[in-house]
Amino acid sequence: MAKHDSLLDLLFTALGDPTRRAILTRLAQGEASVTELAAAHDMALPSFMKHLRKLEQARLITTNKAGRIRSCALSANAFAPIETWLDAQRALWTDRLDRHDDYLRNLHRRRQDEAEPEN
Amino acid sequence: MAKHDSLLDLLFTALGDPTRRAILTRLAQGEASVTELAAAHDMALPSFMKHLRKLEQARLITTNKAGRIRSCALSANAFAPIETWLDAQRALWTDRLDRHDDYLRNLHRRRQDEAEPEN
Repeated sequence: MAKHDSLLDLLFTALGDPTRRAILTRLAQGEASVTELAAAHDMALPSFMKHLRKLEQARLITTNKAGRIRSCALSANAFAPIETWLDAQRALWTDRLDRHDDYLRNLHRRRQDEAEPEN
Repeated sequence: MAKHDSLLDLLFTALGDPTRRAILTRLAQGEASVTELAAAHDMALPSFMKHLRKLEQARLITTNKAGRIRSCALSANAFAPIETWLDAQRALWTDRLDRHDDYLRNLHRRRQDEAEPEN
């Protein structure tokens, strides 16, 4: 639980920044070098590298160095833990609405029973 | 774009904390008062209230005061902007895989053509 929680913390926190989301959107279209990625952002390289590190720590991207070129790629199933969490929330919510429906149905039935008492 | 971006920032940042996610999970099961919610967390009330405010700013929850009781509820469609963003990422990724498939198919066809030249 704690381990899963901390990955969710890293994932959601990594996504809470427009530069990092833009990097992911770019990588969804294919791998890119750090230089290519950085060119799209008006930012000093050390600040840009910090964003990449946050994405890497959250396992959203992988980076790989070949010669002097460091390239970045979106991780497979990068968003899976987030989707699992959202699905669980949705299930709780749906379950709650179902219970609410049952409650209303029972209430309706009781009122009908009261209106038409057995002879 | 900027406005949408800043809501996504608030949403993802709000979700990047286990206390705030636990509050949402509790509220997915039904409304609760601040007192009830706080009882589940070993935390000073002012710190707890800060978490609630972050959830409220991200439009994930609504709060309502009736008499001396402040109650909290999960917002309808609370996660919709996140789901829209995830869907858009998935669409880019799928599109990329489709293009990759097309490329491989064309490559295969060209190789076949080369192996069996027209007479």
